Amino acid sequence: MSVTIAAIGEHALIERLRQKVGLVPPYVVLGIGDDAAVVTPERGTVDVLTTDCLVEGIHFRRDWTAAADIGYKALSVNLSDLAAMGATPRACLLGLVLPPSLPLADFDELVDGFAALARASGAVLVGGNLTRSPGPVVIDVTAIGAARRRRLLRRDTARPGDELYVSGAIGGAAAGLAWLGSGTGRSDLDALALAAVARYERPLARCRLGSAVARSGSVVAAIDLSDGLASAARTMAAASGVGVVVEGEAIPVDPGARHWAARAALDAVLFALEGGEDYELAFAVRPRLRSRFLAAAARSRGLAVTRVGRFVPEPGAWLERQGSKGDLPSGFRHF
Amino acid sequence: MSVTIAAIGEHALIERLRQKVGLVPPYVVLGIGDDAAVVTPERGTVDVLTTDCLVEGIHFRRDWTAAADIGYKALSVNLSDLAAMGATPRACLLGLVLPPSLPLADFDELVDGFAALARASGAVLVGGNLTRSPGPVVIDVTAIGAARRRRLLRRDTARPGDELYVSGAIGGAAAGLAWLGSGTGRSDLDALALAAVARYERPLARCRLGSAVARSGSVVAAIDLSDGLASAARTMAAASGVGVVVEGEAIPVDPGARHWAARAALDAVLFALEGGEDYELAFAVRPRLRSRFLAAAARSRGLAVTRVGRFVPEPGAWLERQGSKGDLPSGFRHF
Repeated sequence: MSVTIAAIGEHALIERLRQKVGLVPPYVVLGIGDDAAVVTPERGTVDVLTTDCLVEGIHFRRDWTAAADIGYKALSVNLSDLAAMGATPRACLLGLVLPPSLPLADFDELVDGFAALARASGAVLVGGNLTRSPGPVVIDVTAIGAARRRRLLRRDTARPGDELYVSGAIGGAAAGLAWLGSGTGRSDLDALALAAVARYERPLARCRLGSAVARSGSVVAAIDLSDGLASAARTMAAASGVGVVVEGEAIPVDPGARHWAARAALDAVLFALEGGEDYELAFAVRPRLRSRFLAAAARSRGLAVTRVGRFVPEPGAWLERQGSKGDLPSGFRHF
Repeated sequence: MSVTIAAIGEHALIERLRQKVGLVPPYVVLGIGDDAAVVTPERGTVDVLTTDCLVEGIHFRRDWTAAADIGYKALSVNLSDLAAMGATPRACLLGLVLPPSLPLADFDELVDGFAALARASGAVLVGGNLTRSPGPVVIDVTAIGAARRRRLLRRDTARPGDELYVSGAIGGAAAGLAWLGSGTGRSDLDALALAAVARYERPLARCRLGSAVARSGSVVAAIDLSDGLASAARTMAAASGVGVVVEGEAIPVDPGARHWAARAALDAVLFALEGGEDYELAFAVRPRLRSRFLAAAARSRGLAVTRVGRFVPEPGAWLERQGSKGDLPSGFRHF
């Protein structure tokens, strides 16, 4: 039988976590090990704070996804929220709710996946807590970033006439989830399907893009695509008191989403629009700032931004296809 | 049948949360509703960050404890960590992992209990997230406070010769939990037992005391008693590379703990030492700073501090009773 986390105990687990933190920058006054962590704020910036969790059975299945990927994603979804505010990651807290029977090897892998992204992103792991779970694994993360107050990317400041842009390609993560749920074994998946699964399991938060366009001053509003493009566009418009028209033909549908949609006989554009978890960013850009926005975005090597719609005066959300306008799908709901 | 949270949906739940926030101070740039919250740091202070969660079936039972008390406690245990650093609460994030079948009335009560303490403590609710749970309720909280860097109360800075002090009375919360587990109905509990249950269900974080003694500069190390006095003393000593002697006769045992210990034929001092969840504070105080410490503590009206031991050069943890020294119990373990 494999060694469980209960067998080695809380202190040893915290010690294992601490060893994965890596280099601690001078702004971290106190990291793991005291009642609370202490971080010196960056002069001239505001603190940007977000928390999100992954719950076994809701966001992941341990029999589908490797523990390292689960740990990675738990941080990535939080970094995506910082990216959507135009903030640069500085620190994070990791709360693990774990069944005592969890194999120690799974703990180590999960923490490795998390800590590798923490080091790579600059979100230094400074604290957290370990709690016994009566069943599901819950990974709760808080991420802290810094941004200039005047460069914050809110979601409620889009205006009629602004253009809607999206980063990357859309629908890949939803296709990956669909493949995982299809019962097809990984060894039977082709390259496009495997790429889609990777999009779902290891989403890349767009931190560099978010802070680059924030610093450029060209973006007037932004949101991340955790719940999909349809939901993001709808939410930005509603929060801003305006309407939005998404242009169906313009949507950069991920090849993996087209692939799955073809197999499942679904409309690829609707599938991509409604699919969650891409963790791309959506932006509202004033036409007169467009070239500045595109120049800033171009500095995020390899990541395209695409104009996919426009904000309009009348509140509401529409999808325009072949010249005719219908309601925009409502997207993913958590409850 | 009662209305469930699934019936009203995520947006309506967030709106209900937002209405409970109360007055938002100017340092909160963005509260609930965007991808992340934004807070302006207090000039000349460092950010103190902590996260802790309550898990159904581990930390509470919904059939034992009112939802309002569960919400209250979820914040209080985090505020206690800030208090132990000498930090003043400024903001908090609330992550709720909830079964869709949760009655809306329970959601409202839980959030009321949380929000009332958030308003009273100054930990303004600025964000969080809602997630579906496959089973247990998990309430995950992050609290952010401010402290002067030079006045931080670490746990690893006790020295031989320092005196160990504790606030309030010890063991009451453990007695409360014991009464809840005894099968005795609440209506059959006497006043002492009910007071103990209240200590367990609505612990008071010692924020005022923590920041008062921190500001006075009289305390050289501090920790909270989440896992009990024995564990706290042991942890401070080990982190500081010194030893500690707890003086059994000096321990301010809560009357509720004596009451339960008498009923269960337990040694009241050991019961109090090992009992967790009192959320009092333990301090290391240099003898020459004692009067300054006592004067600062006296300004926390109604809350006594008691000298219960001393730090010694030889690493280890002992309990001294009637002049003879034995090992200090090891206290509560999470795994």
